[in-house]
Amino acid sequence: MVDQHMPTKKFQKEMNSGTASLVLLSVLSQSEGPMYGYQIAKLLDENRQDALAMKQGALYPVLRSLEKNGLLSSNVEPSVSGPPRRYYTITGDGRETLTRWTEIWSQMKSFVDNILEGESDV
Amino acid sequence: MVDQHMPTKKFQKEMNSGTASLVLLSVLSQSEGPMYGYQIAKLLDENRQDALAMKQGALYPVLRSLEKNGLLSSNVEPSVSGPPRRYYTITGDGRETLTRWTEIWSQMKSFVDNILEGESDV
Repeated sequence: MVDQHMPTKKFQKEMNSGTASLVLLSVLSQSEGPMYGYQIAKLLDENRQDALAMKQGALYPVLRSLEKNGLLSSNVEPSVSGPPRRYYTITGDGRETLTRWTEIWSQMKSFVDNILEGESDV
Repeated sequence: MVDQHMPTKKFQKEMNSGTASLVLLSVLSQSEGPMYGYQIAKLLDENRQDALAMKQGALYPVLRSLEKNGLLSSNVEPSVSGPPRRYYTITGDGRETLTRWTEIWSQMKSFVDNILEGESDV
């Protein structure tokens, strides 16, 4: 008996890592001001269905990587209720990249859906 | 000046690795008989747009990984025109997994599209 969960977990993880950067850029492009990690995590949890559960800790490396690539900038602000918080803002490069990635996402959806619907010439 | 291509290549690569397993299972579920790697690669190339370019060599590790997990089976057949070919067939477990992954893909699309369209409460 093959364990079905192992490959499915891998599939979910790969799908999540592909879309996480896109989703984070998009959230920050629509936000009225800088947001900190936990704030973004809460927002995503409200919109996400169970099958897409992503550990909150998985968000932070993606935010750092986007910043390292110049797509986000951040600054640390003190918090009245706990440790200082790092606030993220999307940069001009980040907005351009979001436009490009949204286009790639759209092409990826068409490609996969065509295959799934058997509209390719299998 | 930030190199825009580096993060975009990473994004494309992550998107590809997430969807490649789904696409391969789907192609083999619709195929009338076993298919070999190059045959699948050609079929995908006909359906894919430029932004999704995936190196053909990237296909083989995914096929092997799906087989290792019991979702595909394979056997090697001699070829009149060259070296023997490994033909892949989807298994019963593979078909069940395809159903589950198609559902995850569909939820992922709704989640990402809701965020992109600003229908989440950002």
